[in-house]
Amino acid sequence: MTKKAGSNPNPYSLDPEDWQNFRQNAHLMLDDMLEYLETLRLRPVWQPIPESERSLFRNPLPWLPEDIMSVHKTFMNHILPFGVGNSHPRFMGWIHGGGTPAGMLAEMLSAGLNANLGGRNQIPVAVEQEVIHWMLELFGFPDNASGIFVTGTSIANLIGLLVARTAAVGDKIHEKGVEGENLVAYASASAHTSILQAFDLAGLGTLSLRSIPVNKIHQIDIVALENAINDDKRKNLRPFFIAATAGTVDVGAIDDLSGLSDIARREKIWLHVDGALGALAILAPDLAPRLKGIEFADSLAFDFHKLGQVPYDAGVILVRDAVLHHQTFVSKAAYLHRETQGVAGGSPWPCDFGPDLSRGFRAFKAWFTFKVYGAKKIGEMISNTCALARYMQSRILSTPDLELLAPVSLNIVCFRYLCSNPDEVNAKIAIKIQESGIAVPSTTRIDGKLAIRAAITNHRTSSEDIDALLAAARSFGISISDPDSQRPLRP
Amino acid sequence: MTKKAGSNPNPYSLDPEDWQNFRQNAHLMLDDMLEYLETLRLRPVWQPIPESERSLFRNPLPWLPEDIMSVHKTFMNHILPFGVGNSHPRFMGWIHGGGTPAGMLAEMLSAGLNANLGGRNQIPVAVEQEVIHWMLELFGFPDNASGIFVTGTSIANLIGLLVARTAAVGDKIHEKGVEGENLVAYASASAHTSILQAFDLAGLGTLSLRSIPVNKIHQIDIVALENAINDDKRKNLRPFFIAATAGTVDVGAIDDLSGLSDIARREKIWLHVDGALGALAILAPDLAPRLKGIEFADSLAFDFHKLGQVPYDAGVILVRDAVLHHQTFVSKAAYLHRETQGVAGGSPWPCDFGPDLSRGFRAFKAWFTFKVYGAKKIGEMISNTCALARYMQSRILSTPDLELLAPVSLNIVCFRYLCSNPDEVNAKIAIKIQESGIAVPSTTRIDGKLAIRAAITNHRTSSEDIDALLAAARSFGISISDPDSQRPLRP
Repeated sequence: MTKKAGSNPNPYSLDPEDWQNFRQNAHLMLDDMLEYLETLRLRPVWQPIPESERSLFRNPLPWLPEDIMSVHKTFMNHILPFGVGNSHPRFMGWIHGGGTPAGMLAEMLSAGLNANLGGRNQIPVAVEQEVIHWMLELFGFPDNASGIFVTGTSIANLIGLLVARTAAVGDKIHEKGVEGENLVAYASASAHTSILQAFDLAGLGTLSLRSIPVNKIHQIDIVALENAINDDKRKNLRPFFIAATAGTVDVGAIDDLSGLSDIARREKIWLHVDGALGALAILAPDLAPRLKGIEFADSLAFDFHKLGQVPYDAGVILVRDAVLHHQTFVSKAAYLHRETQGVAGGSPWPCDFGPDLSRGFRAFKAWFTFKVYGAKKIGEMISNTCALARYMQSRILSTPDLELLAPVSLNIVCFRYLCSNPDEVNAKIAIKIQESGIAVPSTTRIDGKLAIRAAITNHRTSSEDIDALLAAARSFGISISDPDSQRPLRP
Repeated sequence: MTKKAGSNPNPYSLDPEDWQNFRQNAHLMLDDMLEYLETLRLRPVWQPIPESERSLFRNPLPWLPEDIMSVHKTFMNHILPFGVGNSHPRFMGWIHGGGTPAGMLAEMLSAGLNANLGGRNQIPVAVEQEVIHWMLELFGFPDNASGIFVTGTSIANLIGLLVARTAAVGDKIHEKGVEGENLVAYASASAHTSILQAFDLAGLGTLSLRSIPVNKIHQIDIVALENAINDDKRKNLRPFFIAATAGTVDVGAIDDLSGLSDIARREKIWLHVDGALGALAILAPDLAPRLKGIEFADSLAFDFHKLGQVPYDAGVILVRDAVLHHQTFVSKAAYLHRETQGVAGGSPWPCDFGPDLSRGFRAFKAWFTFKVYGAKKIGEMISNTCALARYMQSRILSTPDLELLAPVSLNIVCFRYLCSNPDEVNAKIAIKIQESGIAVPSTTRIDGKLAIRAAITNHRTSSEDIDALLAAARSFGISISDPDSQRPLRP
């Protein structure tokens, strides 16, 4: 048999020996996934995992190969049915995007290319920069600002903090570290835990981050913030960083970004915005005004895999001052030497703006998603998730045995079933709903009260799905708080 | 027309309106990628990027949708041909894995599932932990050690350092930061730049990392290390961290891991191994003995996307002491409250062992790759890349106008064309080879001399590819150093 022109003369190659057979299998695998996505709604959102399923994944290192279709079958039968269910329209637990079929294909193309976006002279870096420039435009940042993709906002928040550290201390921070700098920072009590973690990782310690109380609508209390800054200045400490939140994790509140940017400019403090949950709401015309002031941020962190429905993971950090951003990460290693020509051209490289040197092409799935759907449709979809949250709020307010625990600000609804022992009962209700497969809410605490928390993030969610969750909450509420009652449950 | 049972009642959904049409397009896209991979060898490895191509990626945010096949066409014609070429058998620049067709399909499946591996009660977490346990077994770590996937070794090195910080200082590090702890650490002068960066990011400053000279075979000088530790102890500083290297970036040298582990145990210093380039060579029976002592590391960082040929990005950190690892990252945020039942079960979660809360399912492509090929074949392939490097070394040693600049330790070959002005000429040779499309080597400096550096990492590379690179280096060397000579170049 003559070899095809492109075939590999190397017996150690991992390319298929029989491309035709491989191709047939690949198409079967693709069909399986499309079938799965098309019929998502027919499945339980989540299901308890039997020990017999878990035990399938406790094998020693496989030394010998297994047929690819057999491995695929393990995926289809034993992995795919036992995810958390965030692709499903009735998944409302935590803020998880749903992904899209187009996003799946983008990942296939991207993995076939297998680009390392650390740097070098390649169009994939230009694609990443195109998406970054879309975001600079969207958020009203100057065109000469900088940005890169990272896994998610946890790392993006850390990068924001690290650039702010450079801004406060200068380049000596790299050699000398944080010792003796007396840096202090501010975030609201509702800020995400990753802000706190960033202070730990960056060696500043979490005590250097002041926790500022929130007002009635869960925004950082501006007066309390100003007082804290003045207190610290009197103690000869150096206020250098404010972390604002655009979409708090508990209730979706957006801090007063304009008010914060006034303070930050007056006090010469870096203003970072953690927009993991809320920033992309700027795509929705009815929500964009709520984000006013975001254009004045010194750095902005957000995720495409939440509201943006891009497959996991894809976060972004934008930095107003590209020079400071570059200074914070640029490396001078000999083997990363830059040229003006050839593959080592194209400097600066993305690895000069973040901690990763090996970087997958996560920008591509965001690029593909925005090209295929258009930003307008994505904005309308985000607007709809928030409209659904308000619909849910109104349903709760009009239902006597349900209590709303926080005003709906964005797409998060916190409520509980009213009964005696509400904390205990509502925790059980959430688990019962999850185990039933009807929906997946999560729980949190609002003012000390255990809340069932529904985050409407998935583009597939409709008002019927909201109704189904509330009906399930009430039915389980009745049966748990009054075990004698056996009201029938209709999913 | 009646809607299919699984179709979406939500007009804002991003699911296809016409699944049949979407399915046809998806299969065309898959065919394009398989055709591309099958005929890789027929293409130039890399090609210079005309300004007309770059300018295609400087458009404003797209508000309106574009047909998916039109977007796909942009990918096929304007992105795919302009990557760095690391899938190609004659890519030898930097240490980039080649990816595999099976890895591409794994990413497709994984993106269809769209799991967030931050935590919660799901089989994808069990799959990640299965791969981690394969690696614990492979590297001789105890079964109760811990590990997670991260983007790559840069972040894995940072995690190793952060856990070592906890080990040295205790839990107070989180609140108090690094101030006043007098921590000092050690790595060889050939250690990767990400080790240095980790000290910057973690607030310790790069001056707290001592650069220890290397011996003739580019390993850390053990005596110099011991002297440095003793010097620091006399100054009342606290030696807490040694970063060993398994595969230096310049020449692929492996530190004396057994010798280092003896010192680390005696001095009660954390031993971290940066195995980005070399650790997976343990899969090759002929190379495994070189990694002796790796089983004594306190933490080990490595990448699957290099020698392992898993698509970008997929790195791993393993930590011997799971309790310390957990203590370093665990969060107590209310909305991340754990349950014993339901979706919020399964604690501890992966986000308790690293900085990321949103985490793609990068473990899956590693799992799929190892299942489909088997570890034995992957080890044979790695062994072959090193055999090819030795073949290249022997070819260079027997060619009078080529000079070997460092002994081949693993899969990296550093050489130059002998002539006057060798630095200038060899820099030009490297670029000419890249621009010709024949091969992609990179450059580095060895003992001050500019070296052409070929890293044989791709599973597709064969001895013919080595021959082609060397022939091109000599031809360009002659034509650059003696422009009158016009020896014909046969790729």
